[in-house]
Amino acid sequence: MIIHLSKEATPEQKQTVLRKIESFGLSYQISHGTTGIDLIGIMGDMSSVEEGFFQEFDGVDKVIRISRPYKLVSREFSSATKIIKVDDLEIGGRELVIMAGPCALENERQVLTIAEYVHELGIPVMRGGAYKPRTSPYNYQGMGLTGLKLLGKAREQFGLKIITEATGQHHHICDDGTKEERSVLENVIDYSDIIQVGARNMKSYGLLQELAILTKENQKPILLKRGEASTIKDFLLAAEYLVANGNPNVILCLRGIRTFEEEKFQRYTPDLGAIAVLKRESNLPVFFDPSHACGYRSNVYRISMAAVAAGADGLIIETHNDPANALCDGEQCVSNDQLKKIKDDAAAIRALLG
Amino acid sequence: MIIHLSKEATPEQKQTVLRKIESFGLSYQISHGTTGIDLIGIMGDMSSVEEGFFQEFDGVDKVIRISRPYKLVSREFSSATKIIKVDDLEIGGRELVIMAGPCALENERQVLTIAEYVHELGIPVMRGGAYKPRTSPYNYQGMGLTGLKLLGKAREQFGLKIITEATGQHHHICDDGTKEERSVLENVIDYSDIIQVGARNMKSYGLLQELAILTKENQKPILLKRGEASTIKDFLLAAEYLVANGNPNVILCLRGIRTFEEEKFQRYTPDLGAIAVLKRESNLPVFFDPSHACGYRSNVYRISMAAVAAGADGLIIETHNDPANALCDGEQCVSNDQLKKIKDDAAAIRALLG
Amino acid sequence: MIIHLSKEATPEQKQTVLRKIESFGLSYQISHGTTGIDLIGIMGDMSSVEEGFFQEFDGVDKVIRISRPYKLVSREFSSATKIIKVDDLEIGGRELVIMAGPCALENERQVLTIAEYVHELGIPVMRGGAYKPRTSPYNYQGMGLTGLKLLGKAREQFGLKIITEATGQHHHICDDGTKEERSVLENVIDYSDIIQVGARNMKSYGLLQELAILTKENQKPILLKRGEASTIKDFLLAAEYLVANGNPNVILCLRGIRTFEEEKFQRYTPDLGAIAVLKRESNLPVFFDPSHACGYRSNVYRISMAAVAAGADGLIIETHNDPANALCDGEQCVSNDQLKKIKDDAAAIRALLG
Amino acid sequence: MIIHLSKEATPEQKQTVLRKIESFGLSYQISHGTTGIDLIGIMGDMSSVEEGFFQEFDGVDKVIRISRPYKLVSREFSSATKIIKVDDLEIGGRELVIMAGPCALENERQVLTIAEYVHELGIPVMRGGAYKPRTSPYNYQGMGLTGLKLLGKAREQFGLKIITEATGQHHHICDDGTKEERSVLENVIDYSDIIQVGARNMKSYGLLQELAILTKENQKPILLKRGEASTIKDFLLAAEYLVANGNPNVILCLRGIRTFEEEKFQRYTPDLGAIAVLKRESNLPVFFDPSHACGYRSNVYRISMAAVAAGADGLIIETHNDPANALCDGEQCVSNDQLKKIKDDAAAIRALLG
Repeated sequence: MIIHLSKEATPEQKQTVLRKIESFGLSYQISHGTTGIDLIGIMGDMSSVEEGFFQEFDGVDKVIRISRPYKLVSREFSSATKIIKVDDLEIGGRELVIMAGPCALENERQVLTIAEYVHELGIPVMRGGAYKPRTSPYNYQGMGLTGLKLLGKAREQFGLKIITEATGQHHHICDDGTKEERSVLENVIDYSDIIQVGARNMKSYGLLQELAILTKENQKPILLKRGEASTIKDFLLAAEYLVANGNPNVILCLRGIRTFEEEKFQRYTPDLGAIAVLKRESNLPVFFDPSHACGYRSNVYRISMAAVAAGADGLIIETHNDPANALCDGEQCVSNDQLKKIKDDAAAIRALLG
Repeated sequence: MIIHLSKEATPEQKQTVLRKIESFGLSYQISHGTTGIDLIGIMGDMSSVEEGFFQEFDGVDKVIRISRPYKLVSREFSSATKIIKVDDLEIGGRELVIMAGPCALENERQVLTIAEYVHELGIPVMRGGAYKPRTSPYNYQGMGLTGLKLLGKAREQFGLKIITEATGQHHHICDDGTKEERSVLENVIDYSDIIQVGARNMKSYGLLQELAILTKENQKPILLKRGEASTIKDFLLAAEYLVANGNPNVILCLRGIRTFEEEKFQRYTPDLGAIAVLKRESNLPVFFDPSHACGYRSNVYRISMAAVAAGADGLIIETHNDPANALCDGEQCVSNDQLKKIKDDAAAIRALLG
Repeated sequence: MIIHLSKEATPEQKQTVLRKIESFGLSYQISHGTTGIDLIGIMGDMSSVEEGFFQEFDGVDKVIRISRPYKLVSREFSSATKIIKVDDLEIGGRELVIMAGPCALENERQVLTIAEYVHELGIPVMRGGAYKPRTSPYNYQGMGLTGLKLLGKAREQFGLKIITEATGQHHHICDDGTKEERSVLENVIDYSDIIQVGARNMKSYGLLQELAILTKENQKPILLKRGEASTIKDFLLAAEYLVANGNPNVILCLRGIRTFEEEKFQRYTPDLGAIAVLKRESNLPVFFDPSHACGYRSNVYRISMAAVAAGADGLIIETHNDPANALCDGEQCVSNDQLKKIKDDAAAIRALLG
Repeated sequence: MIIHLSKEATPEQKQTVLRKIESFGLSYQISHGTTGIDLIGIMGDMSSVEEGFFQEFDGVDKVIRISRPYKLVSREFSSATKIIKVDDLEIGGRELVIMAGPCALENERQVLTIAEYVHELGIPVMRGGAYKPRTSPYNYQGMGLTGLKLLGKAREQFGLKIITEATGQHHHICDDGTKEERSVLENVIDYSDIIQVGARNMKSYGLLQELAILTKENQKPILLKRGEASTIKDFLLAAEYLVANGNPNVILCLRGIRTFEEEKFQRYTPDLGAIAVLKRESNLPVFFDPSHACGYRSNVYRISMAAVAAGADGLIIETHNDPANALCDGEQCVSNDQLKKIKDDAAAIRALLG
């Protein structure tokens, strides 16, 4: 249920409404719309609240029951796309936003070489995994905190914003068998400007809840990737977990789904249709990850163009200074030149189609 | 196995090679490349032909074994995309080609009203189903020959090329229970400029073989749609059926695949990634059908843009003068205004990306 | 809409009802239930028939609107499973029915060797493909009419019933390039006791319609395989095509669906859950084809047991006298010994669970 | 790489081998086969170890390179199915093992009522979720520690073994907003005899690693459910995470996969074929969860029978004293009577097929 306050609602009237909500044992979220009007989203079991009950309160303009199972992230709740700010960067606004960097962080030289190029291209956000959830226990599991510190260096030297992945592990175990002191979540929140939740953890609801609570105060944006076989409904409900638990700054990110196709053609099937669906169903910005969706470098350019044409608000792309020797997913990393071409042509399509 | 003749090969040398191929009990197809060189594709069981055997013949430049299961439609066989001509219209060339029209033909007024608008927009090809394969036996099954004749009128009055679907039925049974005299294949071949094979019949290999043989002489182009759950390999092998049986003028058309997604969001999942894969794997032109892929009008514009950005050579779009009362798939038909916008913006993207 | 006549309904009362149905431009099918009561299934657009209209006719017991899109094949239409008789053989009855034989017919020795063993095992029906729809145009396409004649020999020598596949091809083209005189459908109907429609043709609605019309008189049973990615609803609607066009003797056969699984583990995913669903939704007998579902011999025994435990009324199994040299799908053929064990243990499970 | 020691290998010879492995920077796991022979599985990058190096050591019988990406859980590593003991209960042995109980724990009366019936039926293990990962943040999230204590009571009063689910959450947040002191993992390990990892967390590799390390000493068995769209390879690699990190007592549990099927027929597609595949590929016991696979009570009996016929070593079934009012998944809970019939008939099939 969404309560739209009227423009003239006084703070006292607002308080009366909120206290009444609490008196039913319900909780709420307030959203400040672009129109300057407060929207109050009520959560919890509303079966005891009569239809029309809040309509009669002073300062209330209208009351809307949301029919979707996902409430706060739906277009019904807010018809405008949420614009998420990271300092001066606007995500979900008029400009397309590109994030780029390696799949996994490997060493200082690699991180800074790539950071420099990303910066020179005018790309505002660098990606790079310090904690790597890998399908096999025998694969490279990431640099951990040491990697996060390298990202910190990249931020400092080149003025880049940092996005890196949080995993459900309490304490990362390093290659030498020692345990990191602070939890992965705490470390990632500290060192990043935007926190990524990977596809494998999209349904780790405990992780989502905990992350939202830990970022309730600093409101750092969370980029949530769609699970490889999650429906659009389940994806939006996972985003709802984050928003309902206190952090409204969520970016939806598609990265391909699992289908019957043979992997040698496409690692995943890039579900570009879901971009259009999400833009219609949800009020959150929508990104696309062409690297994981394709799995092969040769398709990344075309799928990037398609994603922007389909309406994506941004792209997150894997790039590497030496793809052939990358420790993770080298075959899907684009070169610097390809990255530049993607950036330029994507901007042109965005300008063309709006 | 592909034999590239040298530029200087004489007709006699060519004949010697061909007669040798036949002496092994093998068949062949000759392709005239854009470079003016003849390529001879050999088909059949080549286990008894020694590696290098044909290399030594006079007039032979080089011999290539094709590793793909699909031979004649592969990029290995011919590195240039095949350009298919219908009079002055080039399919697979520099210009994007749009085909538009209703899902099903309904009556003269509907057909000519839509034809007029399609013509006015400068769209060269009109689509429209006279024989409709429907999921339920209780749904509208199409006008049959009467509909084909209306398409003939549209061609005559507006100079449009006609594409319409062939089905596996020998003789269509009309609403009044009477049987059409000639077979569906014969009728469709007669009345169309381009013959469509629908997704449901992609694996009706008997139909493909028969269609290729019946069009061996007139070489009318065949637009082959991908089955809702066929792999890319199986799709290309179905195209191979057409080419190997005598008609090389095949257009591949994607229209969405079946995945785990709930139908209320997307009727099918538009597999736009397959456009990039097919452009890399095959030498045939690649089209996209955004109407069936999306299933809902509101997504057709964005998915059309994405398809062109992904590299599609053309679009086939459902439009209707009165979508609300269409006898088939009205919810996915775009209006005239939407069709105009799609045409204009798609051309702009094609110009931008090449 | 289903009209249940009362037990005491006179022929005249029945005729009055039928003529009234016709007067609305609707058609009907009559089903003689095991209880001796006539059920009249009405087909067509019933929007002009008022709710309750037929209820008041003499001789009418009750009128039921069927809510499923598939009418005649639904449990709503008839609560008892249809028993299909082929001479003394009952399909869908108490006894499990096994059909076995090679994937493709190859030569007289192979056909008669296998027929002899099938017969010795007490298996009543022999399968074997004369017309083979193959994914690649370069693969073995079957013996055609020559193969059908060998099946005729097997029937004669060993008293076996014959099931073989009909395809959509009008006229089969032999290896030597000549065309068979009669159509594939006509040949198959002539030489078989049960006609198989393969998974690839499940949505070739023209074929289904034509087959039903051609067998309207002889009522030869049709075993319809589920398409590799057809939903249960679409499968039942395909069966409805056969029944609504005149042949009610339809056997549903599952053979695995396409999923995200890697083919090296399972060629298809055996959808054994669909057995239970079909037994609940439909009144038709349900078979399972473990050979295509698994794709590998080593799993066929276990999946056969599972299918019978899940409630299948029969199995159709590929067997070969020399699997290693089979021209088609040898890796999924079981040996004679394995076939015997499947038969015995399957019967024991059927006896145990009923 | 697996080193089979000879029967006569002395402790000193074994130590020499182990110290040599460590000297390469590699780690290992020792498995005591049923034959009394020690198998040493070596993990890590073995590219610097020459083929045949260990073959020449005293006390070494043979050395086998494992070709599968999953090593320790493969049949290549150990040809016998691992038998896991919980006191006197054998999992993976001759007897089928059934686990039953409610989806979610609700209150003392519910837990003890169900426990009593489960006990009376002779079912040795009770299931019940205290921490519930739910698709919507607005759904019932479980009783937490209070629920675990009720399971403790059930164990005490009825001598049942307890299985309950661990989630990735560090600290559960109760309905009243307070946080539990100890982590979910710690609580679940304390209160359970067998720890369940749910399908949603199958790829939460951090959770798997942590769980294996925390149970390294007590070696409590872990039942790992397959993710709704994980391939068989990924499922086995997730199990490998547990074994490679120190806990070899892993039970594989299938519970249905996501396919294109409409949910109203089957919540998931029960992948019973995977039972046969897993029994061939892996040395771990294989269970099946018919309740989640079907999603509807009416199919649970038949799918349970099919799972046992396909070779499952056990079933985990949802049951409820009052399904209509269950707080979670009531429509898939069987009644007590149905549970009894499943138990009896499943045992009969196990006895029949072995």
